[in-house]
Amino acid sequence: MGFTVTIPEGSSFTLHNIPFGVISTDANPEPHCATAIGDYALDLPLYFHYRASDDKYFVPLDCDTLHAIFNQPSLNTFAALPSTTRTAIRAHLIEALRDSEVPESCLISLPEARMHLPMQIGGYSDFFCSLEHCQNLLTGLDQCSPMTGGVVAPNFYHAPSVYNGRVSSVIPSPAPVRRPKGVMYDTGKGSGNPVYGPSQKLDFELEMGYFVSTPIAHGETMSIADAREHIFGFVLLNDWSSRDIQAFEMNPLGPFHSKGFGTSISPWVVTLDALEPFACEPKHDHSATEFEHLKWKEREVGTFDVELTAALVRDQKRYEVTKSNLRWLYWSPYQQLAHHASAGCGLGAGDLLGSGTISGEREGELGCLFEATQGGEKPIQFEDGASLGYLEDHDEVVLEGWCGKGEDRIGFGECRGVLLPASK
Amino acid sequence: MGFTVTIPEGSSFTLHNIPFGVISTDANPEPHCATAIGDYALDLPLYFHYRASDDKYFVPLDCDTLHAIFNQPSLNTFAALPSTTRTAIRAHLIEALRDSEVPESCLISLPEARMHLPMQIGGYSDFFCSLEHCQNLLTGLDQCSPMTGGVVAPNFYHAPSVYNGRVSSVIPSPAPVRRPKGVMYDTGKGSGNPVYGPSQKLDFELEMGYFVSTPIAHGETMSIADAREHIFGFVLLNDWSSRDIQAFEMNPLGPFHSKGFGTSISPWVVTLDALEPFACEPKHDHSATEFEHLKWKEREVGTFDVELTAALVRDQKRYEVTKSNLRWLYWSPYQQLAHHASAGCGLGAGDLLGSGTISGEREGELGCLFEATQGGEKPIQFEDGASLGYLEDHDEVVLEGWCGKGEDRIGFGECRGVLLPASK
Repeated sequence: MGFTVTIPEGSSFTLHNIPFGVISTDANPEPHCATAIGDYALDLPLYFHYRASDDKYFVPLDCDTLHAIFNQPSLNTFAALPSTTRTAIRAHLIEALRDSEVPESCLISLPEARMHLPMQIGGYSDFFCSLEHCQNLLTGLDQCSPMTGGVVAPNFYHAPSVYNGRVSSVIPSPAPVRRPKGVMYDTGKGSGNPVYGPSQKLDFELEMGYFVSTPIAHGETMSIADAREHIFGFVLLNDWSSRDIQAFEMNPLGPFHSKGFGTSISPWVVTLDALEPFACEPKHDHSATEFEHLKWKEREVGTFDVELTAALVRDQKRYEVTKSNLRWLYWSPYQQLAHHASAGCGLGAGDLLGSGTISGEREGELGCLFEATQGGEKPIQFEDGASLGYLEDHDEVVLEGWCGKGEDRIGFGECRGVLLPASK
Repeated sequence: MGFTVTIPEGSSFTLHNIPFGVISTDANPEPHCATAIGDYALDLPLYFHYRASDDKYFVPLDCDTLHAIFNQPSLNTFAALPSTTRTAIRAHLIEALRDSEVPESCLISLPEARMHLPMQIGGYSDFFCSLEHCQNLLTGLDQCSPMTGGVVAPNFYHAPSVYNGRVSSVIPSPAPVRRPKGVMYDTGKGSGNPVYGPSQKLDFELEMGYFVSTPIAHGETMSIADAREHIFGFVLLNDWSSRDIQAFEMNPLGPFHSKGFGTSISPWVVTLDALEPFACEPKHDHSATEFEHLKWKEREVGTFDVELTAALVRDQKRYEVTKSNLRWLYWSPYQQLAHHASAGCGLGAGDLLGSGTISGEREGELGCLFEATQGGEKPIQFEDGASLGYLEDHDEVVLEGWCGKGEDRIGFGECRGVLLPASK
């Protein structure tokens, strides 16, 4: 009856994944919701329009309602549905694709799908929750700023550290990012005086992001036991950073322009349902000293085993820069969300939370160039003689992430972005 | 033909003002745009609907278009119009009200109008730009936090300091705010260990806020000479703050939960057109050392002379707490906006920028209780024997602001909010 999608070996988008995103095409230029399968995007409003005439009530919502929910420029309405409803819809899609019940006319070759931000983002917060990253970064920044004293701030160990980011700067891969201008100390020429100009220390940060599903009203808090209900799914996130602007502005208000010029995310949201089989124990165990509102009862499934990599493309050559894993975070996403909600700030469907840069302990596991090059002092040397300090204009950064191996593997696709030269 | 509005003496909403806001009523429960005049709100979609039948083209847009622009739950569409168009529409409203061309059916008694957020806010940033506030606050916070060293950070003098706030926590006066719970050092019992519970050091901050009109695209910057085109208008802003949570979390990422539980704004946006007659010279002159992108050419009209007060209502008694003035800021709103835009973060119509707390040099001119009570150590003593340290549950804070005197006076109305007890 329908089309059988062949899924290439090593594909991110297997039947175990079924991520959600927002696409547009030449034929349908209005952004609308889709899922990805193999090398195709499945146009969801078109699919449910097609199904409306054959078996109307096979999922918790009828096909006309599903058509309306997905025929929108964001996943916000879908994400705000109860998790049981979302789970049932995803299960239906898996079944329909497996049983070849999807008409070929609903499938678009992925290169023909323009990717948009998957959600209308009301708030974007970024955490600082990797102990290894924190240790490396503070030691380094201490060279330029008097704020840190070169030690991890005591608050780090008691609750997830977090700051508000800039929603207007969140962009979907593969959109480019422009090198920002800003105020920084003129360490280059040695005067140390503040100057205004293009940042000279442009970095990436290897992170994951996750979107809020069911909202939490302003003034209300959330029990950590309910965290699963409030997380829609995960993406890769590149928190582009300007280290010279950051050194100027960090004290006392934290990062602003040094982060606010661009934050790239991968465009397909991988749901919690798809990630559940890869739930695992966090690397760090500090459960004995945690506040009650941050205690996750089942430690063995307290986070997810997501392997991450960052690569550089320069002059059409690709260089592997670093690898990491979500489970290395000191504070898990569940704990982050519970802490975020704990003061009653309110969270809406589509709010984006960044995990913070995720670093490991060893060379080759450092989540940004500031760490990997010791503040730009020791560039990474590649086998072909190329050298990487901070990013150069036209460099492209490519983040990838996946769970599992072989037939069970699911992936996040890529989070790409080219660095454009500063504006004149 | 129409109704003649009598404007009470001392009214904030004279013919020189014509602020814009969003209201709903029992008769029309869908939020829609309005202006305020005397003791009335003028229902703008209704008014332009009424005018459509008599003289259609007396403003740059026809009445049907104006009806559609104002028949929305926010002022975003109106604010994104070119400033010349907005100016012409405001001029028309002044003329129509002066010439009694407004039908009585379009006027709603202000107490019958429920006030909503005037704009759909995409981003909220809060500045830290009062030198006197900065000096007082840092000296005080130094008691609890190692971050400041008790001196003004050198970056303060080179560019406006700013952090991202939490959009979901911005609420319109007179909505109440709930005392947040959070992690703080247990200074009360003296152990100094981190505890989680209701904040014990609840403060207000006397600020102004302003909304962006014409957007600035992500990746683009703005010349300060164009700043007027990008500012829609001003409101009063109470940046409710928890000093004990702040002392815990500030280092190194800046404020998050200590500010993100509630930010109250006055609901009527006073336009730049209404403020122009009150343009004046900033108190601080540092023009000789300013970066080029922060130089405002006409210093004598570099900011606005807005008088501000904060009062406390406790047990139905009102206490005057402090007074201040917008022109005391070290960095003017024009400079703040130019700096905000300088790294290409992008700004949308409806983005809200907080001026930062505005303090003067003397007792009675300090913009928050932390300053006025020296970190809570020296409560303010009122004549009737009442004493004010930090805020108590059920305290109400009332901010007011106005420009000019007598017939020329315009006001911002009130920014009120009651502090509710922490949730159980």
